[in-house]
Parts: sequence; C-alpha cells; structure tokens
Amino acid sequence: MLIRKEGIGLLKKRLSEQLKFIIEIDKLKAVWRQSYLTDGSRKENSAEHSWHLALMVCVLQEYVPEEINLLHVLKMVLIHDLVEIDAGDTYCYDLAGRAQQAEKERKAAARIFNILPADQAQKLTAFWLEFEAGVTPEARYAAALDRLQPLLLNYASQGKSWQEHQIEKQQVLERNALIKDSSPVLWDYALQLFQEAVEKGYLTE
Amino acid sequence: MLIRKEGIGLLKKRLSEQLKFIIEIDKLKAVWRQSYLTDGSRKENSAEHSWHLALMVCVLQEYVPEEINLLHVLKMVLIHDLVEIDAGDTYCYDLAGRAQQAEKERKAAARIFNILPADQAQKLTAFWLEFEAGVTPEARYAAALDRLQPLLLNYASQGKSWQEHQIEKQQVLERNALIKDSSPVLWDYALQLFQEAVEKGYLTE
Repeated sequence: MLIRKEGIGLLKKRLSEQLKFIIEIDKLKAVWRQSYLTDGSRKENSAEHSWHLALMVCVLQEYVPEEINLLHVLKMVLIHDLVEIDAGDTYCYDLAGRAQQAEKERKAAARIFNILPADQAQKLTAFWLEFEAGVTPEARYAAALDRLQPLLLNYASQGKSWQEHQIEKQQVLERNALIKDSSPVLWDYALQLFQEAVEKGYLTE
Repeated sequence: MLIRKEGIGLLKKRLSEQLKFIIEIDKLKAVWRQSYLTDGSRKENSAEHSWHLALMVCVLQEYVPEEINLLHVLKMVLIHDLVEIDAGDTYCYDLAGRAQQAEKERKAAARIFNILPADQAQKLTAFWLEFEAGVTPEARYAAALDRLQPLLLNYASQGKSWQEHQIEKQQVLERNALIKDSSPVLWDYALQLFQEAVEKGYLTE
C-alpha cells in the first residue's frame, strides 16, 4: 500500500512537471519573427512557424537524397525555437545580434527543457543540440526547411520583410546556402525564387 | 534527352503543387479559436494550437496504455484543423453549428488536400478521415489531447473562455469524456482540473 501510494505520488509529480512544461511553452506564441504571413497582414510568431515547418517536413521529404528518420526531424522542428521564449528571436541577418544569442539560448534551453522530468529533459535537450549542430541528415533537413519556410513567406508577401530591412540578394544567398547541403532540388528552386524576387523588385540585386 | 526533359517537367509540376499547398496552409494562422492563451492576452489560432498539440503528443505518450505509432499521431494532429481554412472553427459547445459543419469540412478537405499531388492528397485525406472517425488508438490519442489542450489553456486563463460562453461543468464533462477512451490517467487529471475550476469560480457547477 505504501509502495502504491508512493507510485501515485511519483506519477503525480511527473505528470505535473510535464503539464508545467506544456503551459510554459504556450509563451512561444508571443515570440514574433520578422517574416510576414503570406498575405502581409501581420508578422508570424514562432509557434505558428514551427507548425508550418513541421508540415513542410512531411510534404517535402522526397527531395532529400539521404535516408531520413522523419519522426526524429519532426521532434527537432517542434522544439527548435523553444529557447526563444527566454532568448527572443534574433533576425537572421542581424549578425552581431546572433553572436550574443548563443549564450542566451544555452541558458534558455537549460531552464525550459529542465521543467520536464529528467529523462525527457535530456532527450529534448539532445534534439535541440543536434539541430543546432546541423551535422546529421535529420538536422540538415530541418535546417534547410527552416530557411526555406521564411523564403516562401517573404516571396508571397512581395518581399515585405526583405524591404523593411534592406536585404540584398547576396545576403539571402549566403544565409540560405545550407539548403543545398540537404536538398539540391530545393536549392535549385530557391535560386529561381531569388532571381524572380529580384526581377519583381522584392529583393535588391 | 526528351525523357530527361519530361522528368524535369514532372518534377517541376509536382514541386509546384507541393509549394502551392504550403503557401495555402499559411491561412490556418488566421483561423481564430475560442481559447485564450494562458496569459489571457488574446485568443489562439489553429496553427499555434496544432503546434502545441503536436508537442503535447510527444510529451504525454506514456499515459496511453495501448501501443501507438507516434509519427502517425503527429501527422494527424499537424493536419487535423486544415479544413478550418474554408470551414472556419466552430466553438466546441455550439452543437447546432457543429451539425452543419461536417459538410463544410468535407468540401474543405476535398479542395485543400487536392492541391497536393494525388498520392500525397490521398494520404493526407486518409489521415484526416481517420482523425475524424476517432476509432484507431492513434486517432483516440490525438482526439484526447485535442480536448485536453484547450482545457489547460482555459484553466490557466482562469476560465476566460468558459465564462464568456457561460459554460457549465456538465457540458465540459460530456465534451471531454472521450479523453478516458485513450488515457484513464489523463482523464483522472482532467476531472481534478474541472473540480478545481469549479472551486476557483472559473467554471459553473
């Protein structure tokens, strides 16, 4: 009976930690990115972005020549931006900001993932580190689509965010070149998109 | 060479359909639900909700006694609300509205999933139908968390949405009873939550 009581106590502690984490991550819906929605009506937040990315991951897998564990990629993209709850979103072309960002994000990961029971905290931290390292085929695919998603939004919203920040084609090329490390087909498509964006005046040559 | 050219043409057609779908689903970010974010600052949209749900699915799987294919559940929750792009979100306690909703949602599924190449359209349609039928262990788990997620938001925001719609405990009990079909542990937790919500005045007895 004592063991059973302890069992229930442990279960309650574990579930309450998991639910605390679930409540905490609601804050990602209040982290605003620089990308506009396709209709240009407002900026996108990081929770919506993560959902969009997760569904893209499911639809575009065939363009990655390497074998990929899709579940692994999905877990990575679902959690990849959680550190922004504490560290905020740094605009991808703000290079000075990005340098300071790394330490903030490490602290954020330590706080946020550790709301979970230790075994789950370790697993999610490992997924986040794998995404950040960008070495495995899964991490490279996740990173490639994490670049492609804002490109599509930017193009659809007629370059609204590029123009606000006076971004030039060369910057976009450099920032997004890692797409080709995962998918040459999607990189070819991205190159066409940049060219059309220049021709239409969405992006400066 | 001709074959190769045709190959490229087919690839372009296929990829352009997939990208059209990806752009189309951006509209889910403009479908507003009745639930408030945990801080009560604004209502939640269906894209954010789908992301939150997907991450919950990863964290709470251990509370489902049946064997479950997690990737299958994730695909289901990522697409389960896409029909709302055309059909809108009907408040879960609006029973008259829900009856008319089914036909609208069928039409929406036919339009939205068929933006994709036929093979992918068939697969996503099958996932959506499975979710709607709620029979497989995966669909019951997805449905259970689709209920639990707004409960957590409602409780955290001090019953803001329940109060706006004058929802009573009995309605919440009936609406959410299917949680126990997937996870008795999570249903026990939900019952506690309802009781506390009544005691704190978030929900009418």
